[in-house]
Amino acid sequence: MIQTPYLLFLGDAPDALAVKVAQGIRDWRPDNAVGQFRMDGCKADMKLPDMTLAEAKAAGAKTLVIGVANRGGVISQAWKKVLVAALEEGFDLASGLHNLLRDEPDLVAVAADCGRTLHDVRVPSVQYPIADGVKRRGKRVLAVGTDCSVGKMYTGLALDRDMRAAGMKSTFRSTGQTGILITGEGIPLDAVVADFMAGSVEWLTPDNDDDHWDVIEGQGSLFHVSFSGVTMALIHGGQPDALILSHEPSRPHMRGLPGYALPSLETLRDTALPLARVANPDCQVVGISVNTQAMEEDEARDYLAGLEQRMGLPATDPFRFGTQKLVEALAAI
Amino acid sequence: MIQTPYLLFLGDAPDALAVKVAQGIRDWRPDNAVGQFRMDGCKADMKLPDMTLAEAKAAGAKTLVIGVANRGGVISQAWKKVLVAALEEGFDLASGLHNLLRDEPDLVAVAADCGRTLHDVRVPSVQYPIADGVKRRGKRVLAVGTDCSVGKMYTGLALDRDMRAAGMKSTFRSTGQTGILITGEGIPLDAVVADFMAGSVEWLTPDNDDDHWDVIEGQGSLFHVSFSGVTMALIHGGQPDALILSHEPSRPHMRGLPGYALPSLETLRDTALPLARVANPDCQVVGISVNTQAMEEDEARDYLAGLEQRMGLPATDPFRFGTQKLVEALAAI
Repeated sequence: MIQTPYLLFLGDAPDALAVKVAQGIRDWRPDNAVGQFRMDGCKADMKLPDMTLAEAKAAGAKTLVIGVANRGGVISQAWKKVLVAALEEGFDLASGLHNLLRDEPDLVAVAADCGRTLHDVRVPSVQYPIADGVKRRGKRVLAVGTDCSVGKMYTGLALDRDMRAAGMKSTFRSTGQTGILITGEGIPLDAVVADFMAGSVEWLTPDNDDDHWDVIEGQGSLFHVSFSGVTMALIHGGQPDALILSHEPSRPHMRGLPGYALPSLETLRDTALPLARVANPDCQVVGISVNTQAMEEDEARDYLAGLEQRMGLPATDPFRFGTQKLVEALAAI
Repeated sequence: MIQTPYLLFLGDAPDALAVKVAQGIRDWRPDNAVGQFRMDGCKADMKLPDMTLAEAKAAGAKTLVIGVANRGGVISQAWKKVLVAALEEGFDLASGLHNLLRDEPDLVAVAADCGRTLHDVRVPSVQYPIADGVKRRGKRVLAVGTDCSVGKMYTGLALDRDMRAAGMKSTFRSTGQTGILITGEGIPLDAVVADFMAGSVEWLTPDNDDDHWDVIEGQGSLFHVSFSGVTMALIHGGQPDALILSHEPSRPHMRGLPGYALPSLETLRDTALPLARVANPDCQVVGISVNTQAMEEDEARDYLAGLEQRMGLPATDPFRFGTQKLVEALAAI
C-alpha cells in the first residue's frame, strides 16, 4: 500500500500525453494529490500547485509518484537528482515505469539510508495464494471488453465514484499499474505468475458487507489472443455478480492483431456469461459501456439507443453521458 | 534444453508413487535413461541397470535427473552428497522440485567450479515474447479437459508415440515440469508471467512442415477456476487445428474445489471450440479421451461406445484401448 497523499512528479514531460498517470490521479483521486513537481522544460500542467519538495512535505505529501512516462526506458540523471533529493526529504517513491526503481543501485542505497520505500507497481510485492473458488460475501462487478483498451478502467472508476455519490458502498479494485498508482493499492495482474492469477484476484476482493460492491478493473479481452488468459483469471477469480460489456465501435481489428476481427457484443455476452457462471451461478450481464469518442454526439446517442433495443440492456458512454443507467442496474441486484 | 541421456536419481524413495517423474521418463523416453541411481533404503525400482556415477558416465549419461519427490520440501544432506559428486563427475543436474537447485549455495558453487548446468524446470529460463497471433505453418493438437489431471499429458504422449509409429511427423510439446524432464525441453507454463503465457506457447510451437503435428500438452481446465487462465492461454497461443476432449468420469467434483461440478463433455466442447476458433477458425473437435481406471473393462467399453453415439466422435481410453481412433481422426485432417 502506497502512502498518500502524493506529490506528482511530471519531470520534463514533452506533452500532456506523457503524464497519463498523473492525469488519472488528478481526475479520480484529486484528494491524493497535494501538488505537482515540474522540471525545466516541462510541457504538462495538472493545474495543481507547483511545489518544491520542502513545500510538498510541509503540505503533508508522503510519496513522490512518477506521473510521467520516461523516454527510451532510462531514468535520466536529471530525474535521478530529484528522486534522490525526494528520498532525502523523507518521501517514498512510487513508479509504474518498465525500468524499475529497485534496479537503480543509487536509489536503493539512498532509500535504505533514509528508511524510505521504493514502490515499483509493475511487479507483485505479495506472494498470492492459489485460488480456492470459495464463495465470498459482498458483491462484485467486472467490465469485460470486446477488445483491450476499450474503456474498462474508465468505466470502473466512474462507476465507483458515482455509486459512492449515490450512497452505495463501493471500492475500486485496481488490477493494473495506472489503477494502482491512482488508488494506492491493487495487483499488477499482468505481472503475476500464471498459477497465482486467479488467486491474486480473490485476494484483492475478499469477503465484504453484503451490500458492498467491489468494482474490479478489467484487463484484456477473452477475444484477444495475447492476453485472454488474464481476462479468464479475472472472471473466475473475481466471481462477479455483474458483468458490464465494454466496446469501442471504431476499431478496424483487435488491438495489435491485424486480421483478428472484434466479436459482436452478443458473442461477448454469450461467451463471458457462461464462463462467469462457473464461479458464480447468479452472475448477470447488467449493461453496456461504449467509448463513443469517434462519433458525433447525435450519432453516439443513436448508436446507444440502437444497442439498448438490440441487446435489451442499458447502454451508455460513461465519459460522455455518465453512468447513471449502470448504477441503477447494479443497485437493482 | 537438457542434455540426454540421463541417469535417473531415485534417491531414498519410500515407494513407487514418489518416483513418478522417473516412471514417466522410463515409460515415454526409455532411450533417454541409461540407468538408475538408488540410495540405501530406496523402495522404488525402474527395472533399469543400477549404476554408480562413474558407470553411468562411462555409459554416456550426461545429466542426473532427480526422478523422485523429496520429503518436506528439503534437499537432504544425504541427497546433497550424491548431487555434489555427480557435478564433480561431470553431470548436469535437472530437477522439477519446488525448492530449486539454484537456491542451494553449495550446489551453485560446485556447478560453477565444474562448469556444469543446474536445470530447475519449474522456472522459465527464456524471456518469452508477447503473443502476436500470427498464423503458423504446420498442425497442432491440444487436449482440453473437463477438469485438471484427467489424463491430458498421458493422452498427448501416447498420441505422439503412436503418430510417429504410424509414420506421421509429430513432436510432443511439454508445458509442465514432468513433460519437460521426460522430453528434455518445453515451457513451465504455470510459472510464466501472465502477459507472456500465450507468447510462450507460440514460442514452443513455431512454424513447421505442413504435415507436421505439434502435440501440445494440455494444462488445467477452462472450468477449473484456479487455473482456467492457463488453459485459455494454451488455446489461444497454441492455435490448435484439433482439440481432444479429456474426461475422468468418477470425479465427485472439480479437483480441489468442493462444490464445483464437472461440466458435461458437450459443455466443454461448446465452450472450448468457439474460443479456439478465435485463433484458428479451422479448429475441430476430433475425439474424446477418457481415463476409465475406475471402471471394469466391460463397463469402460460400454461407456465409450455410449459416448461415441452421444457425441458423434471417436472415444477411447488411450492407456487401456490405445489411441488408434484418435490417430486416424488426426490423419484425416
